[in-house]
Amino acid sequence: MLSKYRKRKMEMATPPPQSSFNDSNNSHKNNQNGIVQSLLTDLYQVTMAYAYWKSEKRHEIAVFDLFFRKNPFKGEFTLFAGLEECLKYLQNFRFSDSDINYLRTILPPSVEEEFYNYLGSLDASEVSLYAVPEGTVVFPRVPLVTVEGPLPVVQLMETTLLNLINYASLVATNAARFRMAAGKKQLLEFGLRRAQGPDGALSASRYCYIGGFDGTSNVLAGKMFDIPVRGTHAHAFVTSYVGLQDLKNRILQSLQMLTPLDGGSPVDFVSACIDLREEVCKTLDVLHEETKQSELTAFIAYATAFPKGFLALVDTYDVLRSGIPNFCTVALALHRLGYKAIGIRLDSGDLAYLSKAVRQYFRKIADRFEVPSMANFTIVASNDINEDTLHSLNQQGHEIDSFGIGTHLVTCQRQPALGCVFKLVEVNKQARIKLSQDMDKVTLPGKKSIYRLYSHEGHALIDLMQRPHEQPPDNERRVLCRHPFEESKRAYVSPGSVQLLQKLYWTKGEIQEYLPSLKEIRERAIQSLATLREDHKRALNPTPYKVAVTADLYQFLHDMWLDNAPIGELS
Amino acid sequence: MLSKYRKRKMEMATPPPQSSFNDSNNSHKNNQNGIVQSLLTDLYQVTMAYAYWKSEKRHEIAVFDLFFRKNPFKGEFTLFAGLEECLKYLQNFRFSDSDINYLRTILPPSVEEEFYNYLGSLDASEVSLYAVPEGTVVFPRVPLVTVEGPLPVVQLMETTLLNLINYASLVATNAARFRMAAGKKQLLEFGLRRAQGPDGALSASRYCYIGGFDGTSNVLAGKMFDIPVRGTHAHAFVTSYVGLQDLKNRILQSLQMLTPLDGGSPVDFVSACIDLREEVCKTLDVLHEETKQSELTAFIAYATAFPKGFLALVDTYDVLRSGIPNFCTVALALHRLGYKAIGIRLDSGDLAYLSKAVRQYFRKIADRFEVPSMANFTIVASNDINEDTLHSLNQQGHEIDSFGIGTHLVTCQRQPALGCVFKLVEVNKQARIKLSQDMDKVTLPGKKSIYRLYSHEGHALIDLMQRPHEQPPDNERRVLCRHPFEESKRAYVSPGSVQLLQKLYWTKGEIQEYLPSLKEIRERAIQSLATLREDHKRALNPTPYKVAVTADLYQFLHDMWLDNAPIGELS
Repeated sequence: MLSKYRKRKMEMATPPPQSSFNDSNNSHKNNQNGIVQSLLTDLYQVTMAYAYWKSEKRHEIAVFDLFFRKNPFKGEFTLFAGLEECLKYLQNFRFSDSDINYLRTILPPSVEEEFYNYLGSLDASEVSLYAVPEGTVVFPRVPLVTVEGPLPVVQLMETTLLNLINYASLVATNAARFRMAAGKKQLLEFGLRRAQGPDGALSASRYCYIGGFDGTSNVLAGKMFDIPVRGTHAHAFVTSYVGLQDLKNRILQSLQMLTPLDGGSPVDFVSACIDLREEVCKTLDVLHEETKQSELTAFIAYATAFPKGFLALVDTYDVLRSGIPNFCTVALALHRLGYKAIGIRLDSGDLAYLSKAVRQYFRKIADRFEVPSMANFTIVASNDINEDTLHSLNQQGHEIDSFGIGTHLVTCQRQPALGCVFKLVEVNKQARIKLSQDMDKVTLPGKKSIYRLYSHEGHALIDLMQRPHEQPPDNERRVLCRHPFEESKRAYVSPGSVQLLQKLYWTKGEIQEYLPSLKEIRERAIQSLATLREDHKRALNPTPYKVAVTADLYQFLHDMWLDNAPIGELS
Repeated sequence: MLSKYRKRKMEMATPPPQSSFNDSNNSHKNNQNGIVQSLLTDLYQVTMAYAYWKSEKRHEIAVFDLFFRKNPFKGEFTLFAGLEECLKYLQNFRFSDSDINYLRTILPPSVEEEFYNYLGSLDASEVSLYAVPEGTVVFPRVPLVTVEGPLPVVQLMETTLLNLINYASLVATNAARFRMAAGKKQLLEFGLRRAQGPDGALSASRYCYIGGFDGTSNVLAGKMFDIPVRGTHAHAFVTSYVGLQDLKNRILQSLQMLTPLDGGSPVDFVSACIDLREEVCKTLDVLHEETKQSELTAFIAYATAFPKGFLALVDTYDVLRSGIPNFCTVALALHRLGYKAIGIRLDSGDLAYLSKAVRQYFRKIADRFEVPSMANFTIVASNDINEDTLHSLNQQGHEIDSFGIGTHLVTCQRQPALGCVFKLVEVNKQARIKLSQDMDKVTLPGKKSIYRLYSHEGHALIDLMQRPHEQPPDNERRVLCRHPFEESKRAYVSPGSVQLLQKLYWTKGEIQEYLPSLKEIRERAIQSLATLREDHKRALNPTPYKVAVTADLYQFLHDMWLDNAPIGELS
């Protein structure tokens, strides 16, 4: 573990090798692999930094909490993700000369040269960042990240940190919800073409894997993040072939010779398929004239290329009257040469009905040709599937083994943004509060320690925030947990165990914790979700998980609230 | 024009200067500025490429159409965007050794070394790309882009081209809808923190500008794309100040000295404000004890930093009882020194009501202090605004001059994906068709010429697709336009003028057309939208714009359809 720790720390600390421009494939540094620019921020962060600088607040030490107020997708949990990208951003936080020259063109000419010098001197060495570990289940109002440092510096980081965490956590949570809906079925992320830009797609692949997906179609994501990649062929492949005559000239025929798995002389694979076709069609009660030859040709070409990985898209013409007979023909021909076909993909139609009908066909073929395993061919489905589709398929019954999910997963159609905010809670050790007419928007002032209290059975019971000087909760005594805003909501909790939620990830210019691999984060997410009671996770009307404050923090918050709120006057 | 043309062509053709790694701010190459990797594709494109290669189809010349089937947001138009990024991708289309080594690890060991050599040799030099100019209004089924080239090469490009066009066109269209709803009000894009990743945010800023926004808060987008950037301060800025005592020590007091615009001795700006406060409060019928001193302090600090750009966020405590009196106090103090304050921003509450109430307050101040221009202070609003909010505000009446729009704009909450597809229409000059039970999903086979027919008044009447050998439509004769699928829907059209929609943008490894600047694309979008009749653009139940085929293409399509569709059998 230690050597792994060192290795990952090293990777974080060492800049990646410089790419040669001529190798265009390496010169694309996207944010996942590379560096997010410090100028990727809202202009008002820069204008505020100047006003802070101007009124001598540059050395004031501020604390900001990053949190959200509502779980996404009408659910009661969120998976926290994006932390490693935030740490890389801190590592590289710096304004270049070119940035500063640009800022000169957009700020007023009255801005002093000293301010630009100051900006040019900034880095994250005076900043400390505390965070919940990536892949942890989190809840509203709990600070996922707390950043402490010089007021203007931390202010400048607000937008970028929000950008890096908002979508990452949203899509990881979405993936976790699909995972729960799909049970143990395979889940593949197919969202690249519909994602919000190239890096949106890479983020989607990365964070869906954390959330419990098994793989992606995105090759670059596979390369960059070591995620399993999957894919076979599309409709265009099928329609690009006309008919068996395509494969009949001498050169092509020789290309369609297939050597049996155990060796021996190559066999004319086209003829092997044609020999089987009639019997397959008879078994499935389909006229073989109805099966599309162009489709059979495409399947033969694909199977010859991937005899060990034959998975066919069967809905280009007609699933049951052409696609399935053609697939079974080729699968049986492969079987005779010792190869096992994988299965089929459905990309349209009524997936519950079709998958069950296809399974029946597979059983008929398995019986007639005495290959029992053929009853269990994999059925992949990939037609515009969302979370509700999965629940509906579960209710109807289906025979799908694997889902390819794109648009709804990566764009988070049901709720395309998580509303993380970044709120000032302390300046120079003095707590700050942000009031609002809307009680939910009132902030919890001051630095806080955050604990998760578990039952004796290991279930997460409640998250408890307290003031830093308070004694940490432990399993020796019961602790009073209060709703932060509603006076009457209180409960004593006697935890079986207690976990401090935030760790110090960054201080003095260095990463302080081992950064786990993507697979390890995925594992943490699974474990963290497992500590959550089922009723918090169910799809319909889940029970809210409780987030509380201690009596001390409750008092502190409400005193401060009263001190700051104006007294209304009715007239 | 020619020199501009040359300049932009040069820029496209010349690689950007190599960045030094140590300048971290330049080493981030995101897709907008730099290069999208060729490996950013679905795995099935690679497996299909192998199967094509294996069955000797590598030299077959394929034609693919990129189009969508339905306009987004329940509208009847779409703005086409993303073309320049596609052309940059073609320019850099190439698999590196590192890519090929990665592919070796995920493809079966049976894949021949010759295939990897073939992959390594690929570029876009044998590919031609035709497209509608970026910023043009487009409609369902019309090919936005047509790509012609060796079957495996064009197949490998499918996913990336879709990724680059889908979100760009979607968000540009969304922006154009906000623009129509907002009329002539200023529109600012504030979406960075909620966008789907760093580059998602940059794409959003870029394409919202094309769609008619006036600026962005995203500083990096401003730098990269020369978009106006806007922003002042946030709630944290206000809560970071405690009270006037913050500014009372000698150093700080000297910092809050403000020199009058026309020169002269610096004035103690804090005292200047305090002197005005009571009279302002009296004018607005507010108790000056109710106005928050911390807020006034923050406003003073901000105004001292930006005396010519004072725009205050006024809802941290209470808009009417604290924010507006404090703003007016500082604005009047600035006025006495010759500066003009800009206005205020509202970020919560009932925007229609508040903006009208604020305008009343401004009028009272303008009267009382005899500064008529103060009645016209800018009111910016920025609280979770969507297209419907704008329509609703228009109905209620409001006094807002400028909208800052984030989440709903950049995530396209109302419909977060545009369903562009990339369909094979021809191989080796033989047309191909993709059938579907769903008529809308049947493709239009073969290469097509696409024309937009305008009325004599200059309105776009209909888009007409025809077979390449057909005579182009002109204003000398009427042409029969047919609905591609519905037999009875036909119309004769006598156009006032005719426009060929697609241009050849890429062939023989080079960009063939002048690539306009972002501002020019924005201008084209405005002009293109102006050719569209109002009823096609209205928010509620707009009239569909007609997309038709010639009689010849109609016949060709339907003959091919019948030849390929299976005949059903009821039993």
